[in-house]
Amino acid sequence: MDLYFLGTGSGVPSKKRNVSSFALQMLQERGTVWLFDCGEATQHQILHTSIKPRKIEKIFITHLHGDHIFGLPGLLGSRSFQGGTTPLEIYGPKGIEEYIHTSLRISCTNLTYPIHIKEISEGIVFDDKQLKVTAKRLYHGIPSFGYKIEEKDQIGELLPNKLRDKGIMPGPIYKQLKDQDCVTLADGKVLFRKDFVGPPKKGKVLTIFGDTRYSEELIPFVNGTDLLIHEATFAPEEGAMAHDYYHSTAEQAAILASKANVNKLILNHISSRYQEEDMPKIHDKVKEIFPNTIIVNDFDQIKI
Amino acid sequence: MDLYFLGTGSGVPSKKRNVSSFALQMLQERGTVWLFDCGEATQHQILHTSIKPRKIEKIFITHLHGDHIFGLPGLLGSRSFQGGTTPLEIYGPKGIEEYIHTSLRISCTNLTYPIHIKEISEGIVFDDKQLKVTAKRLYHGIPSFGYKIEEKDQIGELLPNKLRDKGIMPGPIYKQLKDQDCVTLADGKVLFRKDFVGPPKKGKVLTIFGDTRYSEELIPFVNGTDLLIHEATFAPEEGAMAHDYYHSTAEQAAILASKANVNKLILNHISSRYQEEDMPKIHDKVKEIFPNTIIVNDFDQIKI
Repeated sequence: MDLYFLGTGSGVPSKKRNVSSFALQMLQERGTVWLFDCGEATQHQILHTSIKPRKIEKIFITHLHGDHIFGLPGLLGSRSFQGGTTPLEIYGPKGIEEYIHTSLRISCTNLTYPIHIKEISEGIVFDDKQLKVTAKRLYHGIPSFGYKIEEKDQIGELLPNKLRDKGIMPGPIYKQLKDQDCVTLADGKVLFRKDFVGPPKKGKVLTIFGDTRYSEELIPFVNGTDLLIHEATFAPEEGAMAHDYYHSTAEQAAILASKANVNKLILNHISSRYQEEDMPKIHDKVKEIFPNTIIVNDFDQIKI
Repeated sequence: MDLYFLGTGSGVPSKKRNVSSFALQMLQERGTVWLFDCGEATQHQILHTSIKPRKIEKIFITHLHGDHIFGLPGLLGSRSFQGGTTPLEIYGPKGIEEYIHTSLRISCTNLTYPIHIKEISEGIVFDDKQLKVTAKRLYHGIPSFGYKIEEKDQIGELLPNKLRDKGIMPGPIYKQLKDQDCVTLADGKVLFRKDFVGPPKKGKVLTIFGDTRYSEELIPFVNGTDLLIHEATFAPEEGAMAHDYYHSTAEQAAILASKANVNKLILNHISSRYQEEDMPKIHDKVKEIFPNTIIVNDFDQIKI
């Protein structure tokens, strides 16, 4: 898994930071990419990366402000144009369906693939054998959600020595044991996977926030997350302004990460009022509270 | 007047050409800018120019395909953010109002200035003492319009020699004569402007096309235009494909320009299937039919 940041600014695009979007690439694990938010010109940013729109399986929208959704209709159309045929699921707050359907209808955009739009509320919004996604309402001027992505524990690695002890040499049975709980051999013997694998590999947990004010109410949702991606619209000293505009300061994000025992904090959604030269000071201040913090720029890639 | 091309591609953005938009800058003449079409990331292109969104007075949409409108909601929001207070008029085919209002409502975008949306049909869509705009239905898969911009004739230049012969020296009276048909002097004498100015300055005529098939029916509308901005989605040899997709070849645009006695032809809306290295061959072919042709790139500026 890795993260590819496409837009790390807030509100309006600047020359340095586009409006919100990032990709969670799971090409090894799942063969697909999930997108979180889709501000205007997300498809333009994608042109400068290795991401293929037809590989996008799901798009999660945190909230309906323009800097998080105005790139959706164009990306959907281009995914068609570039040969996308597999279904696409879009998750977002109430209103996302009307926005998408109106934009596509009025622009006469015919998609070559089915889209399924799910208007979400709090709770589990997706669950399969590999991943679970839970939504949590945040504290913003309009309904805004955080998404917790829980990777399920994976079976441990096969232990070849134990298999060899039973006379099983590397081959098709190893593959079957990876895929199935038990395998019946030609002689009728049954092998149980649990006897031939190491300890399960713990799944990662990521929490991805939309725009929000700081609130201690959010600690339980975030608690123990390996990685928290949090907005930092304002510099540490701007707590009052952050509160007035329903946003967070970089410092507040760090306090939340610290209180919720997060492993790593990634800050995005940086206001265009801050220049590149302001970042080291903000970063230093934040690291005093939560050392394992990164402030991301457009096109940063982070291995999870 | 000058033209600033912001997006000269077609359908989907590429690294070299954004989707459709260009600005007609009339800062000297009118103090404002008019925009024609507003594909996604038009506001991003504007960031790399001297154009100020708050100076945009009117936006004319030729048709509702996504590559011509998906940049509108973001640009409207940013015009607010960047201090726009003056009214903005938007002209476009039926549906443009629903698209804009739905996008702004769902994204909770509150504008700091009034917008007036006019859904157009054929005929005069705007007329003031300086400019007249007439719309004409073109031949595309959905309603698509051409706009003819007619600059009205301007009064001739003041002739100082004639004024001096009457004993009038340079000063406030010169200014009054520029602004009014007649001026009464302190001694009661009346000066008529028509006696002190040279021949009227002929206004320019520009015709701006949305996407269209070639049709001789369009000749009368274009006839005698100083400047025709015409789509050239396909290369000269692709007449059949252009017809099937309701577009034109570069050659067809040149034939129209030639038959309609146009002075200068500007080709835009170039498909991303063509690379920069294909352009000279296309250009040469077109110039055989209509020598005064330019194929524009993003960020080209052309003085009218």
